[in-house]
Amino acid sequence: MIIVMAAEATEEDIQRVSDRLKQWGYEAHISQGVERTLIGAVGAPEGEKESIADQLSRFPMVDRVVPILKAYKLVSRESHTETTPVRIGEVEFGGPRLGVIAGPCAVESEQQILQAARAVKEAGACALRGGVYKPRSSPYSFQGLGPEGLKLMVAAREETGLPIVTEVMNTQQIELLEEADVLQIGARNMQHYDLLRAVGQTDKPVLLKRGFAATVQDWLRAAEYIASAGNLRVIMCERGIRSFETQTRFTMDLGGMAVAKLETHLPVIADPSHAMGDHKLVPQMALAAIAAGADGLIIEVHPHPDQALSDGPQSLTPARFQRLMTNLRAVAHALGREL
Amino acid sequence: MIIVMAAEATEEDIQRVSDRLKQWGYEAHISQGVERTLIGAVGAPEGEKESIADQLSRFPMVDRVVPILKAYKLVSRESHTETTPVRIGEVEFGGPRLGVIAGPCAVESEQQILQAARAVKEAGACALRGGVYKPRSSPYSFQGLGPEGLKLMVAAREETGLPIVTEVMNTQQIELLEEADVLQIGARNMQHYDLLRAVGQTDKPVLLKRGFAATVQDWLRAAEYIASAGNLRVIMCERGIRSFETQTRFTMDLGGMAVAKLETHLPVIADPSHAMGDHKLVPQMALAAIAAGADGLIIEVHPHPDQALSDGPQSLTPARFQRLMTNLRAVAHALGREL
Amino acid sequence: MIIVMAAEATEEDIQRVSDRLKQWGYEAHISQGVERTLIGAVGAPEGEKESIADQLSRFPMVDRVVPILKAYKLVSRESHTETTPVRIGEVEFGGPRLGVIAGPCAVESEQQILQAARAVKEAGACALRGGVYKPRSSPYSFQGLGPEGLKLMVAAREETGLPIVTEVMNTQQIELLEEADVLQIGARNMQHYDLLRAVGQTDKPVLLKRGFAATVQDWLRAAEYIASAGNLRVIMCERGIRSFETQTRFTMDLGGMAVAKLETHLPVIADPSHAMGDHKLVPQMALAAIAAGADGLIIEVHPHPDQALSDGPQSLTPARFQRLMTNLRAVAHALGREL
Amino acid sequence: MIIVMAAEATEEDIQRVSDRLKQWGYEAHISQGVERTLIGAVGAPEGEKESIADQLSRFPMVDRVVPILKAYKLVSRESHTETTPVRIGEVEFGGPRLGVIAGPCAVESEQQILQAARAVKEAGACALRGGVYKPRSSPYSFQGLGPEGLKLMVAAREETGLPIVTEVMNTQQIELLEEADVLQIGARNMQHYDLLRAVGQTDKPVLLKRGFAATVQDWLRAAEYIASAGNLRVIMCERGIRSFETQTRFTMDLGGMAVAKLETHLPVIADPSHAMGDHKLVPQMALAAIAAGADGLIIEVHPHPDQALSDGPQSLTPARFQRLMTNLRAVAHALGREL
Repeated sequence: MIIVMAAEATEEDIQRVSDRLKQWGYEAHISQGVERTLIGAVGAPEGEKESIADQLSRFPMVDRVVPILKAYKLVSRESHTETTPVRIGEVEFGGPRLGVIAGPCAVESEQQILQAARAVKEAGACALRGGVYKPRSSPYSFQGLGPEGLKLMVAAREETGLPIVTEVMNTQQIELLEEADVLQIGARNMQHYDLLRAVGQTDKPVLLKRGFAATVQDWLRAAEYIASAGNLRVIMCERGIRSFETQTRFTMDLGGMAVAKLETHLPVIADPSHAMGDHKLVPQMALAAIAAGADGLIIEVHPHPDQALSDGPQSLTPARFQRLMTNLRAVAHALGREL
Repeated sequence: MIIVMAAEATEEDIQRVSDRLKQWGYEAHISQGVERTLIGAVGAPEGEKESIADQLSRFPMVDRVVPILKAYKLVSRESHTETTPVRIGEVEFGGPRLGVIAGPCAVESEQQILQAARAVKEAGACALRGGVYKPRSSPYSFQGLGPEGLKLMVAAREETGLPIVTEVMNTQQIELLEEADVLQIGARNMQHYDLLRAVGQTDKPVLLKRGFAATVQDWLRAAEYIASAGNLRVIMCERGIRSFETQTRFTMDLGGMAVAKLETHLPVIADPSHAMGDHKLVPQMALAAIAAGADGLIIEVHPHPDQALSDGPQSLTPARFQRLMTNLRAVAHALGREL
Repeated sequence: MIIVMAAEATEEDIQRVSDRLKQWGYEAHISQGVERTLIGAVGAPEGEKESIADQLSRFPMVDRVVPILKAYKLVSRESHTETTPVRIGEVEFGGPRLGVIAGPCAVESEQQILQAARAVKEAGACALRGGVYKPRSSPYSFQGLGPEGLKLMVAAREETGLPIVTEVMNTQQIELLEEADVLQIGARNMQHYDLLRAVGQTDKPVLLKRGFAATVQDWLRAAEYIASAGNLRVIMCERGIRSFETQTRFTMDLGGMAVAKLETHLPVIADPSHAMGDHKLVPQMALAAIAAGADGLIIEVHPHPDQALSDGPQSLTPARFQRLMTNLRAVAHALGREL
Repeated sequence: MIIVMAAEATEEDIQRVSDRLKQWGYEAHISQGVERTLIGAVGAPEGEKESIADQLSRFPMVDRVVPILKAYKLVSRESHTETTPVRIGEVEFGGPRLGVIAGPCAVESEQQILQAARAVKEAGACALRGGVYKPRSSPYSFQGLGPEGLKLMVAAREETGLPIVTEVMNTQQIELLEEADVLQIGARNMQHYDLLRAVGQTDKPVLLKRGFAATVQDWLRAAEYIASAGNLRVIMCERGIRSFETQTRFTMDLGGMAVAKLETHLPVIADPSHAMGDHKLVPQMALAAIAAGADGLIIEVHPHPDQALSDGPQSLTPARFQRLMTNLRAVAHALGREL
């Protein structure tokens, strides 16, 4: 890191910072400019850099501390140049073939999940999504079927062969969701650190949604939590951030997604359904995500969206999903990928 | 709620919406305008309005659904006009006397927490803050002392008489933190719904921080979660939201805090330390919060900020905290309140 | 519009609002609900609705005023269902063929603009961009060549046949830029209303960039300014908004762009270069914009980006632009469009 | 500035950057770390740093360029430690006495402006605000009285002695507004650079509102534009930024205002009326701004807010303004200032 001293810093101020750096085990390189003095700190003890940078910025006459290295290592492309594919069922996310996970927001009934599973399988999805525990912003909204819902998903997997993806909201649920093939961390839980650590101790693939107020850096650090607990099978998922624009539910940040693709070797996918909150905008944004380099998608499909107990407005009907898959396939081929 | 039909809606489209509303138990009032038809829905079944509104917005030729009532009831000032004070130690938050909670970000050692407790007590704080479980955005940062830290806080309470406020990060910790006087829900957990429900089942006051991407509406709904589980002793705490401005760690939204004061009968306080992330800006924003009508403050004070293991840059020294308290008292008196 | 009365409104409060509405020439329909009274106002005098709504929201016991109709008429798809193509050179923006405008951020020298013009022409661009007046956030940065720059662009047009697109920063420049084929309104000027009105009085196509803090509604109203002055040849251009994410220069809001496509009959294009600020991210976002339904693109191309006097980091080299055009063509065909 | 090379940069890459720096007249200091090489550039030619930094960030194997010095000099507190007071009428903004500018959003009639002027004078305001040219987001809204409005303001000045503050929207209006005592640059024009330069060539005080998507850095650079044209009599004015929160019209960024106070020697005031858009929130935020260190306020006061032609909902009545002034005075005294 580099310490930028204030314009009015004295020799003594500079010495104090330099001495302290040495106590912490750093080498300190002082560089006296015409207007400012900079101190370069080399050889930091792993894992404490951030708190040390914090403390240094408190020193009298320190203007700013500029970090040079990144706060994530295991998931960084610097540590591993090639994308690390994560397999879900028959698709290796991150490889040439795109994966599309589809299904209803929440499991509501046997008929609903079976119809959805059949429809998305037929259209070419590689996995079935469905919530059995639902995070809802109002305590008075439908909260999910719980273990009963999971059984229905398992039945749908048995019939269709599709692996199942479902959200885990707390550490206790990990055991309850043992039958799930992929654990999803929702946007509201992206910084629920003991949950991150706990899924990092399983051997299941983890779908890590970006928090809606998380920078790409925050998102990569959340992935680092999971990786540092031993599980590198993480798929990153962009699902929209909060901005001042309110005509879409969230602002889908495909630029941020493209940055993440450059920064990490993990596969990165997108969720246009939650980002937009409106089925009329989902196909455009699904296509855009693929064109921007996403390794796959997760899309809400409901056999009867107008009867859905949650997030109906953003669900596609099976017929529209099928049409979308045709267009996605065409765009994928145009860009040298498969679907 | 009011359903705004699309300009090109036919008689039949309108009838379809109206019929469905009646099935759900609403009365439907059709109002044919020159350019648009509106349908007013009266008498909604409690607790399902949101999903019904969602479904209606999916209907063909429905342009928009405008909700009329609010998604929170128990915490709304409409249900209860006067502010409901919440007592912590000797102060009733929400009454004429302001309460200031102070102490270090994290408990680090016996000496540190005792020194901090004595200093903030002497300056006039009414409670001691200190984290024993710390949510950190990097897995390599200091994570808190755990149960050992709590014992040190209890010792500090015994010496100074100050009640202790500490953050709870998951439902299992509630039991571990039985000795705490006040449970704090951090910004990253504001939508961790089963934690909200669990603290709602305790009889302790809850300090509910606003999520940094949460609207005031979201924040009030999070309070409603706690209240609906049986605990109305909730103190709301504004601590900054994320905006495009990066020179302060977060953007302190005192306007949003003022809206919350109008909307809820719960007491509302502010945390200028986390909002600003820089001790040089904390006093101004502490004073501003009180002037904007806050019922109190939570402020980071560390005996030696430059040695703090977390969030040092934003902590005040005891001397600066004492000066700030003097100024706060003067402003409080100017506005007819006490401190 | 609909006036939602406060829960505690009396008969008299309701009567006062109703009387006032009648004075303004509205019909007032009162609808007494169980919890709230609503007043529907029908037949508003054109052009004053917003200030009337403002005033009503001031009345005692008025909780909210909900507008029903939109603040833009001429540019709305409600007034005109089909997209209105705007021709620039050989391409009708908004028709089946996509248009790509390309060239350097600023005109710097004869050689630079001629090289750029030849390169983008050869790769398939339909128009040449180049700034001669540059809005720069620092007064010490390069401010453009002015009239001399325009002459160089005209020379480039004569050689290549490409129409020229350049930014107009104030009303006086409109005359100075008479030779330009298309006038561009930059993001910083999107609410510079007399400039909007002035370009609305010309007969040239206008490229209207979205302000980086403008909602889609604001952007459409800015277009309405131009249209209401008599010029409907407006091409809307999404170029990124400001959000908390700082790893890209702006957050490209393709969801907002897709909303604009649904709301207006004007063509809508995208500018991935200014949105991203980094050439490494431009191709992905150019492709994504087309996949999301954009009618075209505006892209920065510089023969020697590392010597550019402004915005070098986001410019593509001619070789990369050519590669991008090949990919854009493949995606356009996959979606049934031409390029 | 410091150039951070990519991890995989070779000797040759480093040499290329270093050579180029020397061509531009810099000294280059290479510092080889364990994981990264840094190059410090000292002695930059004034005024081109930004474009040079831009170009360097384009070089192969350059990871980032970190600027060390600020993009504004004349307005920086580094160049001038003490606040530079700007006199308007009897008050020196930036001195111990606070200044309050008040009046209607727009001048509407002789009676309205005279009543407003008398009321705000009596309550202790030091200057009269009133728009004669109004930037309105819809072309169908009231656009101001123009020169006629200015005459009415001059009449109000003659009667009350209050200097007049009015907004200038383009360079031509500067002459038309010769009678005005203070020229206001509105938020939408904060980056209207030739307007900034033009008011910088007058000798009138300039009230520079912060753009609602402008960072504090952008705002300071806008002030630098005015200063670099020769006019240092600039008063900065915070008036709210755009965030995801929509319950207030804008998010008043008092933290950003406090940063501006630290960064510049110019006086800084706040506009709670435009920030909040709702008179019920104006008093709290006016008090908060003063407590946060503002040198003054600009507040909308209208004799009959419910008949205002623009921004009625945010205007205070004379009676409420008087009460607010009493409270402001108390808080000012509590903090050792006068009003």
